[in-house]
Amino acid sequence: MHDPRLVGARVATLATIDPDGRTHLVPIVFAIDGDTLYSAVDRKPKRSQTLRRMENARARPDVTVLVDHYEEDWRRLWWIRLRGRARVLEEGEERERALELLAGKYAQYRADPPDGAVLAVDVTEVREWAAASGGR
Amino acid sequence: MHDPRLVGARVATLATIDPDGRTHLVPIVFAIDGDTLYSAVDRKPKRSQTLRRMENARARPDVTVLVDHYEEDWRRLWWIRLRGRARVLEEGEERERALELLAGKYAQYRADPPDGAVLAVDVTEVREWAAASGGR
Repeated sequence: MHDPRLVGARVATLATIDPDGRTHLVPIVFAIDGDTLYSAVDRKPKRSQTLRRMENARARPDVTVLVDHYEEDWRRLWWIRLRGRARVLEEGEERERALELLAGKYAQYRADPPDGAVLAVDVTEVREWAAASGGR
Repeated sequence: MHDPRLVGARVATLATIDPDGRTHLVPIVFAIDGDTLYSAVDRKPKRSQTLRRMENARARPDVTVLVDHYEEDWRRLWWIRLRGRARVLEEGEERERALELLAGKYAQYRADPPDGAVLAVDVTEVREWAAASGGR
């Protein structure tokens, strides 16, 4: 979780499971603190979309996050996949700290702070892959 | 499915569901033909990884694919999410045609053709999102 590729990545994909059992994917911006990943809900959310990921995480907290690095030289591809347990922070100190971390990483958030809930993922499993070490 | 952003995207994220019920994510390169998305298994695969997505798709064919566009100007963010039913093509004409499509899109495949199975996803649902039209 201290990998600079992970900590510095600008975007990731969050997977949760919908009530109908299908996978739900959404891109997230995120910050890492220790073994926890934080992602906030932007302001002016499209409510149905925003709530879906949070509702899914509440109902089935085992979530997966993928950070993928693509470039046309496929020898330089890599990805990092995290699995963990999600918690939804509606308020409180941990949420405030997470918002500070996110604002520290993203100037966009400093200009326009998110004001919704924060998703915390306590990561239990990290899998790293790089093209140099195997097939895609 | 004719959106040039979708057809031209170089990478996407495929979500399947593991036997234990958790989401499995892996980046894929892909080609679109009509309402079907194709993705091949590279040569020299790391077998456990490669087979997992195929085994998952066989067991639970409802899969989700996300094409995400990130840039630092968040007003220009967009993503396209596809849902569909997966089929695993071990051989046959459709697999051959898919490999041709993939080689047409990716010079990397022309230099080093994939020789494994092809995942076909018959897309039943397309959801597009752009920052201009709502919150993230």
